[in-house]
Amino acid sequence: MEQTDLDTTVLDDRLAAAKQASYRLARATTAEKDAALEQVSSLLRARAVDIVSANELDLEAGRASGLAEGLLDRLTLDVRRITSIADAVLEVIGLTDPIGETLSGRTLPSGVRIDQVRVPLGVVGAIYEARPNVTIDIAVLALKSGNAVVLRGGSAAEHTNRVLIDVLRDALDAVGLPAEAVQTVDDFGRAGARHLMQARDYVDVLIPRGSAGLIRAVVDEARVPVIETGAGVVHMFLDESAPEQWAVDLVHNAKVQRPSVCNALETLLVHRDAAERLLPSVIDRLEASGVTVHADERVRALRPEALPVTDEDWATEHMSLDISVGIVDSLDDALAHIRRYSTKHTESIITNDLGNAERFLNEVDAAAVMVNASTRFTDGAEFGFGAEVGISTQKLHARGPMGLPELTSTKWIVRGAGHVRA
Amino acid sequence: MEQTDLDTTVLDDRLAAAKQASYRLARATTAEKDAALEQVSSLLRARAVDIVSANELDLEAGRASGLAEGLLDRLTLDVRRITSIADAVLEVIGLTDPIGETLSGRTLPSGVRIDQVRVPLGVVGAIYEARPNVTIDIAVLALKSGNAVVLRGGSAAEHTNRVLIDVLRDALDAVGLPAEAVQTVDDFGRAGARHLMQARDYVDVLIPRGSAGLIRAVVDEARVPVIETGAGVVHMFLDESAPEQWAVDLVHNAKVQRPSVCNALETLLVHRDAAERLLPSVIDRLEASGVTVHADERVRALRPEALPVTDEDWATEHMSLDISVGIVDSLDDALAHIRRYSTKHTESIITNDLGNAERFLNEVDAAAVMVNASTRFTDGAEFGFGAEVGISTQKLHARGPMGLPELTSTKWIVRGAGHVRA
Repeated sequence: MEQTDLDTTVLDDRLAAAKQASYRLARATTAEKDAALEQVSSLLRARAVDIVSANELDLEAGRASGLAEGLLDRLTLDVRRITSIADAVLEVIGLTDPIGETLSGRTLPSGVRIDQVRVPLGVVGAIYEARPNVTIDIAVLALKSGNAVVLRGGSAAEHTNRVLIDVLRDALDAVGLPAEAVQTVDDFGRAGARHLMQARDYVDVLIPRGSAGLIRAVVDEARVPVIETGAGVVHMFLDESAPEQWAVDLVHNAKVQRPSVCNALETLLVHRDAAERLLPSVIDRLEASGVTVHADERVRALRPEALPVTDEDWATEHMSLDISVGIVDSLDDALAHIRRYSTKHTESIITNDLGNAERFLNEVDAAAVMVNASTRFTDGAEFGFGAEVGISTQKLHARGPMGLPELTSTKWIVRGAGHVRA
Repeated sequence: MEQTDLDTTVLDDRLAAAKQASYRLARATTAEKDAALEQVSSLLRARAVDIVSANELDLEAGRASGLAEGLLDRLTLDVRRITSIADAVLEVIGLTDPIGETLSGRTLPSGVRIDQVRVPLGVVGAIYEARPNVTIDIAVLALKSGNAVVLRGGSAAEHTNRVLIDVLRDALDAVGLPAEAVQTVDDFGRAGARHLMQARDYVDVLIPRGSAGLIRAVVDEARVPVIETGAGVVHMFLDESAPEQWAVDLVHNAKVQRPSVCNALETLLVHRDAAERLLPSVIDRLEASGVTVHADERVRALRPEALPVTDEDWATEHMSLDISVGIVDSLDDALAHIRRYSTKHTESIITNDLGNAERFLNEVDAAAVMVNASTRFTDGAEFGFGAEVGISTQKLHARGPMGLPELTSTKWIVRGAGHVRA
């Protein structure tokens, strides 16, 4: 229910309450935070029927408004999915609490002792699309790292999110932590989201999760610092020396295993002197899995049935079984193409040439740069981080898969005994 | 000379040239970068006469336009100052090159090897006021950490900066690195600065250095990610148990040693039960050094000659020999006052009570939180970082004194041998 006449007082009260609660959360012990997460997990199970009923309302509204089948699927929560979310919350309990970790420290020549310790960011804002599991994901990671959270889920998940936010707040309350640490601006619609993006006095960081369009809009509008999580126009380059079996397997795994995620392959570049050797088997394997090939002129000379690739294709994250394929004259040309179209998420070279591997690793500017590995490895769980906040494609603060430490800042603790500066 | 009719093509060409050059800088060896810095240092000495002449033009214009004496002083470069800048450049050569450092790494269960290594940010934009030494400072730190740099100095230093930028570019050229790694938008005036702040495609981070007003303007206008360096409304709290000599010495050192810098003390809070014991000697010592006291009613009951403090005073970084002094009823009230007015730079408690010390260290949210030490210690050189880019008062990416590592990002290097994700 979007309210067009925005009452910023109510909004600011909520943001101020989140800020106030964040001071308490920052001092919460690991035991307190873990107890809250256990409550979240059991309340999710206990209220599964309520959650499903609320979700039914959202699904009905979604069907009525003609929401696409894929979006409806992401919106759906059934008891099985709720159970799996509740299980995932328990896994977060098992992760190391980053708060209080000493990152560096020394005694200065004057005798003053300095220590750099991890502290929470404070208030984390999250703006995401109608995937109710993200509500729990983000809130649980924020709470475990001692942060308060302000949520703006998609309006299509409004009823579901309302119940989930009650679960979160009741869980905090049950263990004596402030329920105000979880806030929503969903009932203020887009105006609420816009207000959240401007609220530098209350919100320490904003994490957009969702489509490239959503992320772009947040980056453009926000005055609160943003961590961009990202769209991936992911490339693989088959170097002249690429072993055929690796080329076939890695391209197939990167493209086909889960085409709708950001680490899936979008563009395949092949060295001209390897094209005739590699492309037939690589493309045969892709096509056998239903992949549609968009090819440049030189590839089409070998595979005339392929669709012609457009400049827009090179720049597009298809999130589907489509792949753009081109032939390049050299490693330099591959690097130039990647530099032009990369979203700086993940790029991989398949090669048996050590010099070329090192050049690729050094010269490609991306969160993850790979040699002879599937781009699907860029993932918090694969990297051993446990839960994942998202994959940062920016260079400040966090780059690549973000875990709990990326939801923290640091402060310097300085201890003297009457020390003055000389 | 501000050009009102902005030619964005020329500006974009420069930013694109900086981006292109940044790829070469990112691959430059430590030896190459240090050779460039040696050249910068010797060219500064060799061209001292040219620099002074250009500086004379700026100073004349400054005097003609009625620039304040303090600003004229900061604008002035004489041979002695140029020599000291050239010496400081040599010190940066001695700092550890952060690029290539491995921050973490492991072999995944699948056998894939991942390493997180430091890489340059790319292109660093700097917006600062008419202090020509900052031109060399920032450029040299950016180059040492493998970044290209786009500079926007104050227009009042235009002639001086032009010569300094020639020095930087000639130094790069002399050692075979691209001169394009140093760019200026000074000749485009405010329009150039605005363009720089929007240039997300070319510029990776923007660092404003200068007054609170300048920093606010950059934060408000920029679409490029900003690292806020900071204004400091710095507090000291004299707890009930504060030893008198420490109180007198630390308050004096923090306020008087260098009042125009960001880690200087602005506000003194005193526990009501210590006020009569401590305030007379603390204030006597301050007044003997020419400090003007702005006091609340309860302090004025003890020191009727003090000026009344205003709400604006509490929120002001005076940068002068002025101090705001208030009496609070408890540590909680001190924490609440600090929470309200702090710019999150540096806060210090003087106490002999361990419990209160720990509460202050834990609960105050600032880049540096101190017990029984002068706030003047928050400084890159004091912390042992060598040169300092600035002091970040934000929570993302860097917090507190920023050295070379804070001018870097990371990337994940992933090495497989035909590994696909299961």
